Amino acid sequence: MGNSFHLARTCNSARAGELVTPHGTVPTPLFMPVGSQGTIKTLTPEEVKDIGYGMVLANTYHLYLRPGIDVVAGLGGLHKFMAWDGAILTDSGGYQVFSLAPLCRIEEKGVKFRSHIDGSEHFFTPELAVEHQEKLGADIIMVLDVCTACGDSLEKVQRAMELTHRWAQRCYKAHKNQNQALYAIVQGGVFPELRQRSVEFLTSLDFGGYALGGLSVGEPKKVTFEIVEQTATRLPEDKPRHLMGVGSPEDIVEGVARGIDIFDSALPTRVARNGALFTWEGRCNIRNAIFRRMERPIVSDCSCYTCRTFSAAYMHHLFKAEELLAYRLATVHNLHFIYNLMDKIRKAIIDGTFPRFREEFWSRYQPTDEQVRVSQKQKWLKSKGRELDSGSAPT
Amino acid sequence: MGNSFHLARTCNSARAGELVTPHGTVPTPLFMPVGSQGTIKTLTPEEVKDIGYGMVLANTYHLYLRPGIDVVAGLGGLHKFMAWDGAILTDSGGYQVFSLAPLCRIEEKGVKFRSHIDGSEHFFTPELAVEHQEKLGADIIMVLDVCTACGDSLEKVQRAMELTHRWAQRCYKAHKNQNQALYAIVQGGVFPELRQRSVEFLTSLDFGGYALGGLSVGEPKKVTFEIVEQTATRLPEDKPRHLMGVGSPEDIVEGVARGIDIFDSALPTRVARNGALFTWEGRCNIRNAIFRRMERPIVSDCSCYTCRTFSAAYMHHLFKAEELLAYRLATVHNLHFIYNLMDKIRKAIIDGTFPRFREEFWSRYQPTDEQVRVSQKQKWLKSKGRELDSGSAPT
Repeated sequence: MGNSFHLARTCNSARAGELVTPHGTVPTPLFMPVGSQGTIKTLTPEEVKDIGYGMVLANTYHLYLRPGIDVVAGLGGLHKFMAWDGAILTDSGGYQVFSLAPLCRIEEKGVKFRSHIDGSEHFFTPELAVEHQEKLGADIIMVLDVCTACGDSLEKVQRAMELTHRWAQRCYKAHKNQNQALYAIVQGGVFPELRQRSVEFLTSLDFGGYALGGLSVGEPKKVTFEIVEQTATRLPEDKPRHLMGVGSPEDIVEGVARGIDIFDSALPTRVARNGALFTWEGRCNIRNAIFRRMERPIVSDCSCYTCRTFSAAYMHHLFKAEELLAYRLATVHNLHFIYNLMDKIRKAIIDGTFPRFREEFWSRYQPTDEQVRVSQKQKWLKSKGRELDSGSAPT
Repeated sequence: MGNSFHLARTCNSARAGELVTPHGTVPTPLFMPVGSQGTIKTLTPEEVKDIGYGMVLANTYHLYLRPGIDVVAGLGGLHKFMAWDGAILTDSGGYQVFSLAPLCRIEEKGVKFRSHIDGSEHFFTPELAVEHQEKLGADIIMVLDVCTACGDSLEKVQRAMELTHRWAQRCYKAHKNQNQALYAIVQGGVFPELRQRSVEFLTSLDFGGYALGGLSVGEPKKVTFEIVEQTATRLPEDKPRHLMGVGSPEDIVEGVARGIDIFDSALPTRVARNGALFTWEGRCNIRNAIFRRMERPIVSDCSCYTCRTFSAAYMHHLFKAEELLAYRLATVHNLHFIYNLMDKIRKAIIDGTFPRFREEFWSRYQPTDEQVRVSQKQKWLKSKGRELDSGSAPT
C-alpha cells in the first residue's frame, strides 16, 4: 500500500480528507506529535496511539547525529526502533541544521554543519537527505530546504528560495522508494511574490504533498496567516498541505480555515512540560496557587487519562514537587486536547458548520500572549460580523 | 477490614505469609516501591499495579511540607489524592527529618527542624506524627523515631534509642484509628546489646509490626546483616518484620534469609533513573557502548513492558539522548525485576527450596560494588559448603 490523499469535503477554504500511508490511514486535518529523537517526549508509543494519533514526526537531523542512521537501519528501521506501527513523517533536517547546529555553511552542493552534541563536522546534500530518510523508512519524507530568518532581506530570501528549488529538484530525482511520499517545502519568507514563485516552481514537479516552511519563526501572526492563506489557496487541491512547526490550538483553527491539512509542532508537548495546560478558555498555568486545593480535574469534561484520574490539585503538587510524572500527565492532556480539537474541526467541516465552530472557539478561547490577545482577538471580536472562514480574521 | 499478618510457611529463617490491610491483601516477603511525594517517580498508579504491586510507601515528612497534610486530607486522603487504591505505608518522617532537613534539633518533646524546601521552621512530636499519618489515611503508619549516624558512639546511640522508646510509647498511646496498624522501629545502631534492649522494650507493647531502622546507613554490609539476623530472630513470630530502606536484589535475598518480611527502598527506582538496570547477573549500565546496536532487550526472558517492547539499543539511545521516556522504561524494568524476584523468593519458601534459590541467585549475581564483590561474594563462594540459609553467608 503506497501513499495517497483523498479530499472528502470542503467548507469554504477548510478541508477534510484522509491520508493513506503504508502504516495506516489518518484523517485530515491532522496534527502530528513531534518525536525528534524517535520518542514523543515522556510517552510510550501505546499512549500516543491510545490518545488517537496515527502519525508522528521524527527528525532526520537528530537521528542522524544520535544514534546514527545506520544504527536505526540496522535495527530494522525507525518504526521498529521506536516500536511505533503507525505512520511516520521525517523532516529532512533542513530546519534543524539552520536552527540548532553551530557553524552551518550553505553551498550549492549542500550544507556543512557542526553537531550541536559534540561539535563534529557533517555535510548534508539533497541526495543524502533522501538516502537517510529512505534508510529510516518513514512513510512521508521531506526535501532538504534552505531556511531563512525573520528579518532577512528579500534578496537573501530569494537566493535561499532559489537554492531550495534546485535542491528540491535534486531530491525529486534522488527519490526512488515509492512506499515513501516525498513532500516539497514552499519557501519565500514573508514576501508574497516569492511565495507565489515558490509555489509555481514546486508544483511544476509532481510531489506527494506540499509543506509551507519558514513560517512562525518570529514574524507577526498576522503576516504568518496572510502568507498561509495566499500560499495554500494556490497549491493543488488534490495534494495535502502541511504547515510546518505550527500547533497551538488557535493557530490550528486558523490554519485549517485557510486550507491547511497537516500540522506538526513540539509546542503542545513542550508547553505541557512547562506546566501550561490547554483548556477551551486558553492555556492555564498549573503551578498557579489557585489550583492548590482544586478537587476537579484541569478540564472538567475532558476524557483524557490525566483528567479522568487526577485532580488539578494533584497536578499542581506534581509540578511544584518537580516530579517526572507531572510532565507525562501534562503531555497526555495537551496531546489529547489537540487530538480532540482536530476531531471536532473535522466533524464541523464535514457537517458544513466549521465557520460556527471557529466562532464558538474564539468566543471562549483567550490566546496566551498578551499582545496576541489585545491586537488579534479583540480586533477580531469587533469585526465579528465579517465572514469568519475567509481568513481575514482573527489574525 | 482491619490489618493483620498471617505466616503461611517458613523455610529455616525465611518466612512467607500475607499482610491483610483495608486496601487489599499483599503477599510477603514484600517489597514496597517508594513514592515519597505521593508518586512512584515517573509511573502512574496503574503501571505500579500492573507490575503487580499492591502496596507502596509514602513519606509524611515530604507530604507535610508539600502539599501539606491538610491539603491531602481536604482532598479525601492520600489514596484518593494519588489515585492509588492499593495499600499504603507512611513513614513517620523521623529518618527524613534527620537526613534531609537542615538544623534538626531533638528535644524530649519532639524534633524541631527546618524545611529543606523553603527553610521554614517546624516541630514534630510523636503525637503529631500519628495525627499527620491518621489524616493522610495510610493503612500502616510508623512511630516517630530518633535516628543516629554511622560512627556514632554507643552512648549517643543509647540516648537516641531510649528517646525512641519513650516516643514509641507516646505514639502507641496517641494511636486511636484501628484501621491503621502502627509499627514500632527498633533502633540501637550497630550495637547488638542495644538492639536486643530495643527489641525487648518495643515488644513489651503490642505494635502491629516491627521495623528495623538505622541500618544500611554506611556501616559495612556484613555488620548490617549480623544486626538484621540477630534482631529479626528475637522479634515475635506472629508480627511482620520490616527492614527499612533496603531494596537491592542482593540485600533482599539476604534479608529474607534472615527472617525479614517487608522491604522498602528508593534504590530500584533511583538507580533506574541513572541507567543501572537489574539483570540476574547484576546491574548493567545501559549507557555502556556495548548496548548501542543490541537488538535484544535488556533481559532476554523478561516479561516487563520495557523488555517486551524495546531493544537494549533503543534504551541506550533514550539514555544517551536524555529522553524522559528512558527513566520511565528503566523504572518499569527495575520494579518488575524486584517484583519478580519477590515472587520467586516466596514460591521457593513455600516449596521449601529457598536455600537452593539463594545459592542459584548468588551463582549468577555479581553485586555492583567492587568491594562488595570481592569481599563478600568470593568469600561466600569459597565457603559454599556451609549452611546457605543460616545467615552466615554471603555478607
